[in-house]
Amino acid sequence: MPNSMKPMRLEDDRLFLLDQSLLPGREVWIEIRDTEAMHEAIGALRVRGAPAIGIAAALSLAQEAARAGTVAERVARVAAAAERLRAARPTAVNLAWACDRIVDAARGLASSSLSPASWSDGIRAEAMAIWNEDLAASEAMARHGATLFPTATRFLTHCNTGGLATGGGGTALGVILGLHREGNRAIRVWATETRPLLQGARLTAWELRRAGVDAFVVADGAAAFTIRRRGIEGVLVGADRVARNGDVANKIGTYALALAARAAGIPFVVVAPVSTLDPAAASGEAIPVEERNASEVTAFAGVPTAPDGMRAENPAFDITPADLVTALVTEQGAFSPPSAAFAAVDTPS
Amino acid sequence: MPNSMKPMRLEDDRLFLLDQSLLPGREVWIEIRDTEAMHEAIGALRVRGAPAIGIAAALSLAQEAARAGTVAERVARVAAAAERLRAARPTAVNLAWACDRIVDAARGLASSSLSPASWSDGIRAEAMAIWNEDLAASEAMARHGATLFPTATRFLTHCNTGGLATGGGGTALGVILGLHREGNRAIRVWATETRPLLQGARLTAWELRRAGVDAFVVADGAAAFTIRRRGIEGVLVGADRVARNGDVANKIGTYALALAARAAGIPFVVVAPVSTLDPAAASGEAIPVEERNASEVTAFAGVPTAPDGMRAENPAFDITPADLVTALVTEQGAFSPPSAAFAAVDTPS
Repeated sequence: MPNSMKPMRLEDDRLFLLDQSLLPGREVWIEIRDTEAMHEAIGALRVRGAPAIGIAAALSLAQEAARAGTVAERVARVAAAAERLRAARPTAVNLAWACDRIVDAARGLASSSLSPASWSDGIRAEAMAIWNEDLAASEAMARHGATLFPTATRFLTHCNTGGLATGGGGTALGVILGLHREGNRAIRVWATETRPLLQGARLTAWELRRAGVDAFVVADGAAAFTIRRRGIEGVLVGADRVARNGDVANKIGTYALALAARAAGIPFVVVAPVSTLDPAAASGEAIPVEERNASEVTAFAGVPTAPDGMRAENPAFDITPADLVTALVTEQGAFSPPSAAFAAVDTPS
Repeated sequence: MPNSMKPMRLEDDRLFLLDQSLLPGREVWIEIRDTEAMHEAIGALRVRGAPAIGIAAALSLAQEAARAGTVAERVARVAAAAERLRAARPTAVNLAWACDRIVDAARGLASSSLSPASWSDGIRAEAMAIWNEDLAASEAMARHGATLFPTATRFLTHCNTGGLATGGGGTALGVILGLHREGNRAIRVWATETRPLLQGARLTAWELRRAGVDAFVVADGAAAFTIRRRGIEGVLVGADRVARNGDVANKIGTYALALAARAAGIPFVVVAPVSTLDPAAASGEAIPVEERNASEVTAFAGVPTAPDGMRAENPAFDITPADLVTALVTEQGAFSPPSAAFAAVDTPS
């Protein structure tokens, strides 16, 4: 995929992450050697984005699987590591989903009397399958998302949902980049900066510039007014978890954008792979929302933004009610209402 | 007014401004010696807040009036200085209103055959009247605003609308601080940080802490979710200009808060003195929205937040449609719909 940006890479058995907390100022790849290092990297948002943290966790578990020991010892070690990694961030269900899938594979393959080396090759293959399926899902989402916007050229997006947030393709930003690559219309994008950690200003802006897309950053508070005065034709966002009723957990600020899109009468489209759907969550009420440290809000780049001792609240995600979601795009299609995406999963064609 | 914070002060004929661009880190008073210095201070937001910049401009014009010359020369000089100051920022109508009022006084008093010294004393008295009327208006707004919230304890506010934004009282924050001072209920406030220039995190947080109010800062994008999950009972904001139909120009981000309040079914109340009403603006369409430098968005405290060369849009204000405004509180009362405030001005009781 041209212009794609993979946030992780393997060199033989060595696993490297692009440290997204340092972008765009510095492009530093860090080597991940064990579960604790991956736990820290996910918690500190060195790797972030719901699909990306799932893939990164799977690769880390495959690394754990390759360490010395009997198959039984390795299964136990992978299961323990999976428990540790799934606790690194609570909201994105892809992380738990990828951990479960690797643990299931570890246990399933253990019943086949494989040698430890063959068993761990199987785990690595499963992790690579998760990554490759995500890349294929990104391509399919870009295709399905494009059908919703046959002529639109002006989009607003939130946080980062491009290659950096996935295995290298993208969810919401992937749809926009796909339209740009088609080359037959001049796409223009307004990216919210996405406080407190500025994934929009830092990461989406970086991807948009690399792809040569005409783009602007706006403060989060400017998004609703920008939608109206710039004639935005669609708001596209990703998701960290979608509940069975279609409620969407996504980066804090998403709910406000959904309200603004509704007020402007334009589509509000959520783009996320099937691994983001959580059939166990009946509604948004059942989705845990991660509270991050207040210092992310009260300081920036080490400079205090609020008086000494001022308290802050820092929910990392919010819940957008299903009725504000025009469509949910997965690799299986574009679904409206969003809860319809679950039917496609329940009865795969 | 206890806990009030006046953003300017006079020492004999010397005029000082508290440099709000340095708060809360440093509390620096700068002396303003001429029109150019005041123009720079208003443009750089060393003094900001619609009522405050009107008062500051009036005091600066009174200083100009006291310089040597015949009354005719002084009138011409004050008129020229007023033209210069009214151009410092385009959106807040209070600035133009205060400049007009001083120029009208300069011309009116010139017809009374006063000595230059008596004439300039008259101009100074007019400027002090603008300041004192604003303090009285703040007290009246706090009183009228309180009637809208007989039992509420949980408020969300945007930008800074306290003593620093006015002559020392406050508009929206003045209502909240007034309820806190009543002392019979535990007021809790969520203050949006208000990117790009963080007037909420820097200034409102500072005033709330000085007043001993239980308060939190939240990212602008977190406001809509906070309203819902924290059971906020009212959103209060100020205004930079109110059009005759009740549309409100206020700090960027206000429109999104109005949508969030509407979605939550809670009051969205605008608090502003009569000097903020612009009968000449038929609707929000007629209000010029100041575009500020993109660098306010793409960097913070000298640290880049976006990649080199990334463009940004930085509207300083947005327009909230009248139908989202539950009530407009002025010193003359609480008006619903907001356009009703104009009737009270047109036919003063």
